[in-house]
Amino acid sequence: MGKYKGEGSLAVRPKTTEEVSRILKHCNERNLAVVPQGGNTGLVGGSVPVFDEIIVSMARLNEVKSIDPLSGVLVCQAGCILQHLDDRVAKEGLMMPLDLGAKGSCHIGGNISTNAGGIRYLRYGSLHGSVLGLEVVLANGEVLDVLQSLRKDTTGYDLKQLFIGAEGTLGLVTAAAIHCPPRPKAKNATFLACATFSKVLETFRKAKADLGEILSAFEFLDKESLDLAVGTYEDVKSPLPGSPERFYVLLETSGSNEDHDNEKLHAFLEAALESGAISDGAVAQDGTQLKAFWRIREGVPEALNTHKAMYKYDLSIPQSTMYGLVEDMRARVGDRAYTVGYGHLGDGNLHLNVVADAYSEELTSLIEPFVYERTAELGGSVSAEHGLGQMKADCIGYTKGDSAVSLMRLVKKTLDPKGILNPYKVLPLPGEVTPPQDS
Amino acid sequence: MGKYKGEGSLAVRPKTTEEVSRILKHCNERNLAVVPQGGNTGLVGGSVPVFDEIIVSMARLNEVKSIDPLSGVLVCQAGCILQHLDDRVAKEGLMMPLDLGAKGSCHIGGNISTNAGGIRYLRYGSLHGSVLGLEVVLANGEVLDVLQSLRKDTTGYDLKQLFIGAEGTLGLVTAAAIHCPPRPKAKNATFLACATFSKVLETFRKAKADLGEILSAFEFLDKESLDLAVGTYEDVKSPLPGSPERFYVLLETSGSNEDHDNEKLHAFLEAALESGAISDGAVAQDGTQLKAFWRIREGVPEALNTHKAMYKYDLSIPQSTMYGLVEDMRARVGDRAYTVGYGHLGDGNLHLNVVADAYSEELTSLIEPFVYERTAELGGSVSAEHGLGQMKADCIGYTKGDSAVSLMRLVKKTLDPKGILNPYKVLPLPGEVTPPQDS
Repeated sequence: MGKYKGEGSLAVRPKTTEEVSRILKHCNERNLAVVPQGGNTGLVGGSVPVFDEIIVSMARLNEVKSIDPLSGVLVCQAGCILQHLDDRVAKEGLMMPLDLGAKGSCHIGGNISTNAGGIRYLRYGSLHGSVLGLEVVLANGEVLDVLQSLRKDTTGYDLKQLFIGAEGTLGLVTAAAIHCPPRPKAKNATFLACATFSKVLETFRKAKADLGEILSAFEFLDKESLDLAVGTYEDVKSPLPGSPERFYVLLETSGSNEDHDNEKLHAFLEAALESGAISDGAVAQDGTQLKAFWRIREGVPEALNTHKAMYKYDLSIPQSTMYGLVEDMRARVGDRAYTVGYGHLGDGNLHLNVVADAYSEELTSLIEPFVYERTAELGGSVSAEHGLGQMKADCIGYTKGDSAVSLMRLVKKTLDPKGILNPYKVLPLPGEVTPPQDS
Repeated sequence: MGKYKGEGSLAVRPKTTEEVSRILKHCNERNLAVVPQGGNTGLVGGSVPVFDEIIVSMARLNEVKSIDPLSGVLVCQAGCILQHLDDRVAKEGLMMPLDLGAKGSCHIGGNISTNAGGIRYLRYGSLHGSVLGLEVVLANGEVLDVLQSLRKDTTGYDLKQLFIGAEGTLGLVTAAAIHCPPRPKAKNATFLACATFSKVLETFRKAKADLGEILSAFEFLDKESLDLAVGTYEDVKSPLPGSPERFYVLLETSGSNEDHDNEKLHAFLEAALESGAISDGAVAQDGTQLKAFWRIREGVPEALNTHKAMYKYDLSIPQSTMYGLVEDMRARVGDRAYTVGYGHLGDGNLHLNVVADAYSEELTSLIEPFVYERTAELGGSVSAEHGLGQMKADCIGYTKGDSAVSLMRLVKKTLDPKGILNPYKVLPLPGEVTPPQDS
């Protein structure tokens, strides 16, 4: 974390949109750079000052404005914590359309600014679809009010979309209207073992067909991931102890009728066993077991974090070629490190991690730029759900062509002409991007 | 339709993105305005030249590039017809995430440029969520390639979002990658009668809770709409003939297990009858009857079109206050015209129509600007899913504040500095917008 400077930065904690507006107006007039900060749970340094930027903490903008149980629309300020919002809408029979490991401290404004993914993405999709309206303070302090609560609206350009995933570099999100789906009445989970990655894909295809509308998560772990989590934490136990298989799937269903869901799930499992797609499986018998299954999945990134050196990649890769990259990486680093692959397979999102006892130039040069080059060759993305922040800004060219990066720069220049908003993030400094191509 | 001029306009029919690029480069250098045209099924004149704009027909850009049955991603050119795409992806067990009356001739590029809604919106959401990638030719002929096929990608600004719903005023969409959900194995429909609008809302709330993940459409019609469709077409028959009720609902379910869906639907109907939310209901007994139910709904706009004078409004209104606007309108116009309200209630989308034998200044002045002012007071949108085009551009101020309109103008100026792309659409001419407010 030596990359992060600015620990002595000034931090301001506005309580209202009006205060955020005055702060930005002041900073813009005086050419003072700012970095918006939510729950500070980001993984690419997007909310951390690089030099002497002023931190604008959104923590006090934490009011729930309204919840409409009929339309399912929540309106709240940016500093609300995701878990608190999920608890709050639960009282109206609703659920937040996203869920992620950091839910206990991440802010909804940060989620929106990162375009965070997580485990409900497979079923409920992107925040570009779920966010209905935003209030945003622009670089010059002007308040852009597109905080509509309407499911449909085609009056002009959908400006709010610009700020979803912009990591605070185009404006500061101060409030949002979010469409929340009905909270499922029944949840079920199963933990499956597959002999090969192609069997994992076969299982996914079958789950989409047989479970259809109740499929709510399809996470995979390789044996290395599972062993790491089980080996690190006493409370993480495999429901299939001693299984010799290379791959494991945590599949979740959510629905409105427990009997129906159980029937669908068991018919799916029977067929998947019979076809050989899966070689073994355990079904959660109650809510405690369901949580225990999820604990395995959540234990993987936690266990990785206990290592002294961690190379962490959040990639989108077409599903059919996804695991090849993990195998190639493992072969490259050999005994120098421990390589694991896991993630949101249903969304084509691979978390590829290489951990070791210490960073070394040799190891680094085996991993990078290989991991980015290979991802680009496969037509993937070098950041699926974590954003670019300061750590990955220079990698944008692996996924986006020069026509796209040029237009992003133009958008940035148009909305933040002085460049005061979260500098050094998302877009690489000019000169650090690959040379323009003809398009 | 006298408003539409330019009938003698030149039309070009490019076959490739490269040709579109050369056309725009040529036009931009010579200050020639263009209007992109898809299936020409828009309802607000968005694809019709106003003066002497050159029509760029997208009809020959009609190639399906790829379909990945595993990820559900379709990649195709902009001129593909929606119905053809739905038939094509059906062979892979997939379904287009949108469906609308004009599907037999509308183009997917036009759908994306309008951010079209339709009857699957309730379940599958906005194109801002379903469209994964776009290829767009910018005003100067440059090709913006963000035609990614990935479900998740957070590398920089999500530029494609700018062009979804921009009605061809920021760039010409030439190709798209679209996420298609699994095609449901079972469909069911029921036609319900409700005594009051608040019972319609009660029924909707109950349907969301009881039917949950299988609810795929919730359309409402008032008695005037139903009578009009039944009275105009011999093949449109009410499944509840002689029903005295004021309101009707067409509710559709889609799922992966017919028995489960039937069980859920019947339990819901029984409870809704018992609670008095609905007073009567008919369930489609087979696919033919299901189509006959949808024929009623589709018959309403068709029957409205047979009238000599039609005032047509596509509004988003919070559900609880939606029908009050229809009642107010009916009271205002009295015997001078016939007022109907119907639409996608599940999405808060009201189609309010006033039809008469002839246009008259008296009638017009009773309707406008009342309908827009009232929509604004209710926090609604004056265009839910049809766009603004040339007919509604001047109304943008009823839904969007001046900070938003100013930023839209800035975005337009940035992407199309010479203003050659679909002029006179979406944004009102300067001077025709309400005066700036402080924000």
